[in-house]
Amino acid sequence: MKRRLIYNAFTHVTPNHHSHGYWRHPEGRIQLDYKRLAPWLDLARTVERGKFDTVFLADVVGVYDKFRGNGDTSIRTAMQFPSLDPASLVSALGAVTEHLGFAVTSSVIQDHPFDFARKMSTLDHMTDGRVAWNIVTSYLDNAARNHGQSALTEHDERYRWAEEYADVAYKLWEASWEDDALVADPERGVFADPAKVHKIHHRGQRYSVEGPHLSEPSPQRTPLLFQAGGSEAGRSFAARHAEATFIASRTPESAALTAADLRARARAFGRDGDELKIIVSLAPVIGSTEAEALARRRELKEWLSVEALQSFWSGGLGVDLSNIDPARPISELLLTNHVRGNVRAFIEAAPDHVVTFGDLLRQTVSGRFAGTPEQIADEVQRYADAGVDGFNVVPVTTLGWWSEFVDQVVPVLQSRGLMQTDYAPGTLREKIQGHGPYLPDHHPARLTRAAVRPVSSNHAAAVT
Amino acid sequence: MKRRLIYNAFTHVTPNHHSHGYWRHPEGRIQLDYKRLAPWLDLARTVERGKFDTVFLADVVGVYDKFRGNGDTSIRTAMQFPSLDPASLVSALGAVTEHLGFAVTSSVIQDHPFDFARKMSTLDHMTDGRVAWNIVTSYLDNAARNHGQSALTEHDERYRWAEEYADVAYKLWEASWEDDALVADPERGVFADPAKVHKIHHRGQRYSVEGPHLSEPSPQRTPLLFQAGGSEAGRSFAARHAEATFIASRTPESAALTAADLRARARAFGRDGDELKIIVSLAPVIGSTEAEALARRRELKEWLSVEALQSFWSGGLGVDLSNIDPARPISELLLTNHVRGNVRAFIEAAPDHVVTFGDLLRQTVSGRFAGTPEQIADEVQRYADAGVDGFNVVPVTTLGWWSEFVDQVVPVLQSRGLMQTDYAPGTLREKIQGHGPYLPDHHPARLTRAAVRPVSSNHAAAVT
Repeated sequence: MKRRLIYNAFTHVTPNHHSHGYWRHPEGRIQLDYKRLAPWLDLARTVERGKFDTVFLADVVGVYDKFRGNGDTSIRTAMQFPSLDPASLVSALGAVTEHLGFAVTSSVIQDHPFDFARKMSTLDHMTDGRVAWNIVTSYLDNAARNHGQSALTEHDERYRWAEEYADVAYKLWEASWEDDALVADPERGVFADPAKVHKIHHRGQRYSVEGPHLSEPSPQRTPLLFQAGGSEAGRSFAARHAEATFIASRTPESAALTAADLRARARAFGRDGDELKIIVSLAPVIGSTEAEALARRRELKEWLSVEALQSFWSGGLGVDLSNIDPARPISELLLTNHVRGNVRAFIEAAPDHVVTFGDLLRQTVSGRFAGTPEQIADEVQRYADAGVDGFNVVPVTTLGWWSEFVDQVVPVLQSRGLMQTDYAPGTLREKIQGHGPYLPDHHPARLTRAAVRPVSSNHAAAVT
Repeated sequence: MKRRLIYNAFTHVTPNHHSHGYWRHPEGRIQLDYKRLAPWLDLARTVERGKFDTVFLADVVGVYDKFRGNGDTSIRTAMQFPSLDPASLVSALGAVTEHLGFAVTSSVIQDHPFDFARKMSTLDHMTDGRVAWNIVTSYLDNAARNHGQSALTEHDERYRWAEEYADVAYKLWEASWEDDALVADPERGVFADPAKVHKIHHRGQRYSVEGPHLSEPSPQRTPLLFQAGGSEAGRSFAARHAEATFIASRTPESAALTAADLRARARAFGRDGDELKIIVSLAPVIGSTEAEALARRRELKEWLSVEALQSFWSGGLGVDLSNIDPARPISELLLTNHVRGNVRAFIEAAPDHVVTFGDLLRQTVSGRFAGTPEQIADEVQRYADAGVDGFNVVPVTTLGWWSEFVDQVVPVLQSRGLMQTDYAPGTLREKIQGHGPYLPDHHPARLTRAAVRPVSSNHAAAVT
């Protein structure tokens, strides 16, 4: 195959990641085990058997509480609530796998960047270079109020925050230890050369961090970088920093347009457009016949909780949707004045077959595509032809569903050259990017080296 | 046996935890593997075979940089440097064991308490209730400067900080979710009862945290609490909060005095003195004969790096010890005026056989006791008779050494009733404290329930 497609097993340590309400269905009840380790170990083993690239661990650090002005609906329906710490699972998942990568979502409002950098370096060491960071800035008011803020920081300012946060982490990962700082020579009694282990002396708007980094360079130094940002500031951040970015797309054609925009932005930052992998969602319901797949999707949709979806989208759009009756036709809603901004754009993007607002909510989640393994492979082919680089595979249930995909769909994808049949050697970055374990030297992470080393050596006094 | 003694495998994810310099010895080179997961999995399996209670993961979040005014010695000699993130190992260690506990050291200057509480709850879920928190406040200037402070916070203020930090975590662990908040009823479609999942609305000097906790109650709710504080403020903190505390002690008699003081303080806080377990260090060199043990200890001491020890103790005492010649007799040093405060007390506490300052440094670490398994059991017996509750077993090398202790010493301890021969059922707290999985209701963690619930319900409007 010419372009190796990337597959991420898209998950979240929560009872309902996307199939909101489906935990009530007999098949969905397995999600109540989200807090146990064993099913996650099974998941990792299964998707490694299916040659997936990563388990992608999504996260939120607050309750969706826009709907009706509180979090009650989210709490009652288990809508991305509870939400456990994804990084805490990684070493266990790494211990039972050999090649699989692990993408950890972590918001800049959570860990101090000094400790975050150490944690990711630790996990990169312990997994032999298989970790990725999904950089997020948090969009939930409650998440902000859990972290000392009175309200969510303004959108573009969140990205400026992320720039500084990444800068601190980059300096620790890339600039603190020179490549030959580690000596590890018992005969000479030298573990590391202090002249080559640098304090970073970061002083910025939000952070002041001395260093040095408390981890010797891990296999990848900077973990593989994921990011998803649809806004102007978000796309710009992705184009500058990300090695893979998720885009929302209804059709291969719309994906191609977004991909072209993002690649052009990356080139404007001096990057090769191919350094930024474009990932779309693949949310299939699988059937041995098309009729069976469609019947299963109908059942799935019946079990979705519209209330949970209202809470999900109220949080996602930042608008309380409780005043929009789910039974109303969207054509009617678009004629009214009170549907504006975000919500109007959300409704205008509805696929043609959607009639009511409730239908629209239901079709946003799992099961957007239903078909046989061959039909799913056809859909994958359409996106591959449009130039996307890979897929976040959104399961019907996070736990338990993967063997269905791996046993039924993966062989068809592999036989058509649409999925790898074995892992390439090396770190996650080497597998995904096809070059060495480190970021290229023009990436902002690598550029921190010049900034830190000449002026901030431990031996600055001797140098000047 | 009347009192079950507690055994912690005392470790740190670093090349030299206590045997500073010994990584250069052929036996010690195994420590260069500290960054790989496999030897830690071996360690966990081995000490579980030996019926240890926990793997105790120490930590520092900075470089010891007092000695000669910089961190060069620590960096060159790998003296508790690098220092990787201990919490990141827990899920993997939990996955390969069934009963063993995991004590995670975490300083209040690191994680935001909202995220720390979620992380510990996640780990408590994923290990079926086997985690403990070792509460520390950090004593290294560099650690403070890595976290936005210009210098170390004043000692007693650090404990006030710890009080608020623990208070936030307690509210999330104990007060946010009522015992019957989790419904998990697919038939009714109710995951949790929003009326019983409370925001905590914490507003304090350092933190403002809304809540609710993003984890349903874990098996222990609050992890088992460890703390070590020798100062007045530290002892008071331990007496109020800790379920196990480490004390420095040279003899069983001095241990008994400290234990009595701590238990009296605990009683003054309304606690049963027995709720606070008193732990001392056990740092043995094992031989099949006494002569062999003594010879091994001599060799160990020859390989210790005095320079690394100078850096270690300069950091620990907060004083640059570079102006004290390690060859000087301590009797002479005590006659001088420039040896004051901390350092004078450190020297005055030297055992009788110590001659020079360098000897004193060397005897503070691994190998303080050398003997046959029977002699080690005699030493354990002396401490048990003095009323201590357990031991932090300090190995010669963190990795690789444990099978020696487990195969040779553990059977002797077990045959004398000084160590458990099997695990009790239940969570770590149940194993250690012999009662249910939660803290007793008079503990400050449990007392937060009354503070949070009546005034801060999600339904406060309906209540008032």
